[in-house]
Amino acid sequence: MRVVDVEKPVPGEGEALVQVKAVGICASDVHWYLDGRIGDAVMTDPLILGHEFAGVVAEVGPGVTCVKPGDRVAVEPAIPCYKCDRCAVGEYNICRHVKFCGTAPTDGALREFIAWPESLLAPIPDSMSVDEAAMLEPLAVGVYAVSLVEPILGCTVAILGAGAIGLSILQAAKAAGCEQAFITDLIPERLELAQKLGADQVFDASDPGLVASIKAATHDLRPDVVFEAAGENEAVIQAIDMVRPGGQVVIGGIPYEDVVSFPAAMARRKGLTIRMLRRSNGTLERSIKLIESGKIDVSSYATHRFPLERVVEAFDVARFRRDGAVRVVVEL
Amino acid sequence: MRVVDVEKPVPGEGEALVQVKAVGICASDVHWYLDGRIGDAVMTDPLILGHEFAGVVAEVGPGVTCVKPGDRVAVEPAIPCYKCDRCAVGEYNICRHVKFCGTAPTDGALREFIAWPESLLAPIPDSMSVDEAAMLEPLAVGVYAVSLVEPILGCTVAILGAGAIGLSILQAAKAAGCEQAFITDLIPERLELAQKLGADQVFDASDPGLVASIKAATHDLRPDVVFEAAGENEAVIQAIDMVRPGGQVVIGGIPYEDVVSFPAAMARRKGLTIRMLRRSNGTLERSIKLIESGKIDVSSYATHRFPLERVVEAFDVARFRRDGAVRVVVEL
Amino acid sequence: MRVVDVEKPVPGEGEALVQVKAVGICASDVHWYLDGRIGDAVMTDPLILGHEFAGVVAEVGPGVTCVKPGDRVAVEPAIPCYKCDRCAVGEYNICRHVKFCGTAPTDGALREFIAWPESLLAPIPDSMSVDEAAMLEPLAVGVYAVSLVEPILGCTVAILGAGAIGLSILQAAKAAGCEQAFITDLIPERLELAQKLGADQVFDASDPGLVASIKAATHDLRPDVVFEAAGENEAVIQAIDMVRPGGQVVIGGIPYEDVVSFPAAMARRKGLTIRMLRRSNGTLERSIKLIESGKIDVSSYATHRFPLERVVEAFDVARFRRDGAVRVVVEL
Amino acid sequence: MRVVDVEKPVPGEGEALVQVKAVGICASDVHWYLDGRIGDAVMTDPLILGHEFAGVVAEVGPGVTCVKPGDRVAVEPAIPCYKCDRCAVGEYNICRHVKFCGTAPTDGALREFIAWPESLLAPIPDSMSVDEAAMLEPLAVGVYAVSLVEPILGCTVAILGAGAIGLSILQAAKAAGCEQAFITDLIPERLELAQKLGADQVFDASDPGLVASIKAATHDLRPDVVFEAAGENEAVIQAIDMVRPGGQVVIGGIPYEDVVSFPAAMARRKGLTIRMLRRSNGTLERSIKLIESGKIDVSSYATHRFPLERVVEAFDVARFRRDGAVRVVVEL
Repeated sequence: MRVVDVEKPVPGEGEALVQVKAVGICASDVHWYLDGRIGDAVMTDPLILGHEFAGVVAEVGPGVTCVKPGDRVAVEPAIPCYKCDRCAVGEYNICRHVKFCGTAPTDGALREFIAWPESLLAPIPDSMSVDEAAMLEPLAVGVYAVSLVEPILGCTVAILGAGAIGLSILQAAKAAGCEQAFITDLIPERLELAQKLGADQVFDASDPGLVASIKAATHDLRPDVVFEAAGENEAVIQAIDMVRPGGQVVIGGIPYEDVVSFPAAMARRKGLTIRMLRRSNGTLERSIKLIESGKIDVSSYATHRFPLERVVEAFDVARFRRDGAVRVVVEL
Repeated sequence: MRVVDVEKPVPGEGEALVQVKAVGICASDVHWYLDGRIGDAVMTDPLILGHEFAGVVAEVGPGVTCVKPGDRVAVEPAIPCYKCDRCAVGEYNICRHVKFCGTAPTDGALREFIAWPESLLAPIPDSMSVDEAAMLEPLAVGVYAVSLVEPILGCTVAILGAGAIGLSILQAAKAAGCEQAFITDLIPERLELAQKLGADQVFDASDPGLVASIKAATHDLRPDVVFEAAGENEAVIQAIDMVRPGGQVVIGGIPYEDVVSFPAAMARRKGLTIRMLRRSNGTLERSIKLIESGKIDVSSYATHRFPLERVVEAFDVARFRRDGAVRVVVEL
Repeated sequence: MRVVDVEKPVPGEGEALVQVKAVGICASDVHWYLDGRIGDAVMTDPLILGHEFAGVVAEVGPGVTCVKPGDRVAVEPAIPCYKCDRCAVGEYNICRHVKFCGTAPTDGALREFIAWPESLLAPIPDSMSVDEAAMLEPLAVGVYAVSLVEPILGCTVAILGAGAIGLSILQAAKAAGCEQAFITDLIPERLELAQKLGADQVFDASDPGLVASIKAATHDLRPDVVFEAAGENEAVIQAIDMVRPGGQVVIGGIPYEDVVSFPAAMARRKGLTIRMLRRSNGTLERSIKLIESGKIDVSSYATHRFPLERVVEAFDVARFRRDGAVRVVVEL
Repeated sequence: MRVVDVEKPVPGEGEALVQVKAVGICASDVHWYLDGRIGDAVMTDPLILGHEFAGVVAEVGPGVTCVKPGDRVAVEPAIPCYKCDRCAVGEYNICRHVKFCGTAPTDGALREFIAWPESLLAPIPDSMSVDEAAMLEPLAVGVYAVSLVEPILGCTVAILGAGAIGLSILQAAKAAGCEQAFITDLIPERLELAQKLGADQVFDASDPGLVASIKAATHDLRPDVVFEAAGENEAVIQAIDMVRPGGQVVIGGIPYEDVVSFPAAMARRKGLTIRMLRRSNGTLERSIKLIESGKIDVSSYATHRFPLERVVEAFDVARFRRDGAVRVVVEL
């Protein structure tokens, strides 16, 4: 990875030029960085990474009416085709021809200026910092994850993984009235943060007795819903193992292996519903409101900050989750 | 496995004594026969197998009002506890304390007489044979499988596996108005039967180009829903691979391995919903009506018939799917 | 109403010029004709009516890629704004700024040529006549109505009203596997047609014992789902009265009164779910397939045909449902 | 209404004798008191009213295992038949043969002792008073009402009526993460209480500009969900009028008229989903937890308290909602 000079883009019809101010580094960025691929999406040319970002509108292209220069904006990183059968029913996150910022072959946001459709920009309130705005993307994923399951008012949930996605799911679940939220991680600093953000109990993900402990914490009833946000095969297995019969499991992490071990017999006997989490859909505006009203706090996600010229260092902190890193943010 | 003398049971309060007339042999019976276990359900004592059965009421216990001696009945093989949280919301198929006929430690139906709660007996019409009535159990599973997914009127579905469950799903899906139903199997006789029962196209499950062929048959749109009823890890992988983005996969087969390989990356990128099929719930009456009205035909499932004394032979035919066996029925 | 000369429209960017071949007259057209309004949608200027139509592409505007001159097409009559919160989640039928063909102030299809967005045109197969294609609009409404309720495989449904919408709901419900479909109307010819199209039992809607008769026909269990497609307050009351506890009622008719009498106490005690039917959404393509595969037949809807110059006569037949009129089609 | 001597009941098999400690007076009790009927449920003999109650177990009948003398308990007032088709799928609140405490012909709880099935008793924590426990019934209705609609995390809701049901819906909706909750009532004291319990804005229900004001408070987007809990026809009309297109309306009030005026044209154009609220189902335990964890507070509902001998006075305060009465509680 290196910093290069690229031409400043010219915003086209309906596009705004956004001066990028903050970019979060997501586990998927690290996948691209290390492997040059995620599953069968493979990078063949040099790629600018980054899709969790916010900035300021610098210029607007022809026909732009909703934003103007100077507007501080959060960004929806997926550009749907609006033509396929999935777009036709509003399932933009699984558009058959989506272009996703920072996913090959679409260049991402780790640069000074990026041109983006105005319809995918959301002005943010004055009270919100650009660092917080850059965290809106993982928050929108968390809010979307919670929207995939039955109403959880009064339910018990477990979240496996306390990174930015896991913490967002935690906060969205608590905001949606879950009675008990358990969360696991390997890193003590993350578990501490989870507790500050509302977790009722935290657990060491490497404890071989984890499933038994969580079972005990529910008086043997087991959690109603389990969200996997750790990106580890082991977490998928734990999720299936700990959830109650008839429960729901949302699998959101990106394991290094494309194919994982899956305890099918157990899942079948429990009659589970499993939702595979694909990015987010329609939850950006709601996420802004949840921060604005104080129900959810993303200001603590950005545990580390680097300027653009130290981007390689930033990726290394993110990669090894150094010093309890939750989100590493590159600031411009 | 051997035939032994057991005492004729005495029907208790609310129970009827059923003279068993026909018992289908299911893949799960074969699992018990070969391995003495299914997943972590393990048999420790000798067990009478069999849960797909029908018979005639011979006697009734105290307080029985809904059936009388002479009634021909189909049987719901699961006895829920009616007390746990799952029963409280009508999810009887995942009752935490269910007793299932022929699943350790509850003896099954491969015997002359069995006592069963009257509330779990369904009188069958005169037009229905006991062999057909014994096939109501797999049919109820198929009808339940189809009820787990979004309405499929006008949709394209694929069914992997053309045994009794697969054929029941096929027929239920066609009855529910799916536009195209594809089905796969390894055995030509089963595929022929599937075609007679309404399959629009049949495929050899061992063809390495299977997924590509099914994709082509949908003009690259891929099936909206895929039902796995083959009990093979390979079929689980095919299901995830062939379904469309945002599609639904129902996993119903019982692979020999408790833990299977699962293409998580692919499933996540497609944002799939996966339903694990656990027996059936509340679909027995509806299944009777579907046969009665001629919408569904199970009379062809019973490809082989044996008397009770040849039960070991019956299991061997079922085990090796000899001569294109769909269902082997033991007749008493 | 009168026939006037209007200028031939010029197709804009992304639009095709459609030579109109057949236009069905819907109850809503008759409302406009008689009252100049439907609810608080009021016509202030002369309006060209007609929204159930099909034709042939005559010319294409700039940027059109999906249709070409000579293509025979069915038409989606609603043009969503694609910008409001409803469009953002794919609920195009309740778009906050929708333009609907033949609804003030958007001129309709009762004319020789109309320009329409190519994305709202669906090429029809050679086997389909333009009269049938004009009937795709009410069929899409019927298919959508059925999609609003829980899966109806093996259920009992009642449809109140056997006009083009009612018959479309009937056929969609039968195609979706309902066990019994009852239908009511005032006009014997319509009930006869309903029987040909699959109704299991037909009833005179004016019979004061109607609800009791339908209850009896279900052995007192009552229909699981009732679709109101009569546009009469009485039918709304019958629907609430006849449906089973916990049942679903879809209200689709357009009564002359904006405010109707509603048996709230009965509906509340039954804990009903009531869906108000607003046009259709995403069911046009599926409706074409359902006709093409022979599952549904709309060829008998067009009971009367008139040339454009006799349009007033056509409206009078439609208005008074003369000679058992189902759909009156104006042919050009 | 008068106080009479009745025999102390003897608890049967599976029943406990409960010494009644507190009984709330609900609007439905007032209906019975004034009219001797609700809809077509008609009282023909003298009836003991009361169904919102709590008490202490005094004795237990044979076979009782879950409660013991001395246990303080909340009570589920509906006894389902456990045999009909609705019970079979867990829809106990619309059981076809339900017996409801204090609804003709089943005597209610306004007496010293009542025998009740142990399975419908829920032990309450020490921290909960019996007055609070008596309020669990309306709270369970509120929690159930919120469970009927799509997840409301980040949504805007309006609640029409700030009685015990309306306030329970309010608190359940806030606990489920709704972004804004508006509430209306005629009585200023109730609106004050609503504000203390979390309402974001309160409105005078008699203001002719009510719908316009609420529309303005949502920047013209209108509430996503409206709950009617006022029992006034006018509130039903307001609900339909104020909700957004595609929104959900839950109708829970019991108007004096069995048949109400219903703006069908408006509801149809908006494509609304309307849920008729029938008591509650499966939300009693969850309601206990919501109080125990401090998410919901019902201690302020009991605005007035009377001993049993002043029950007529109690009903008059409830009937005329004197002094801003929310719940009048009869204490024994």
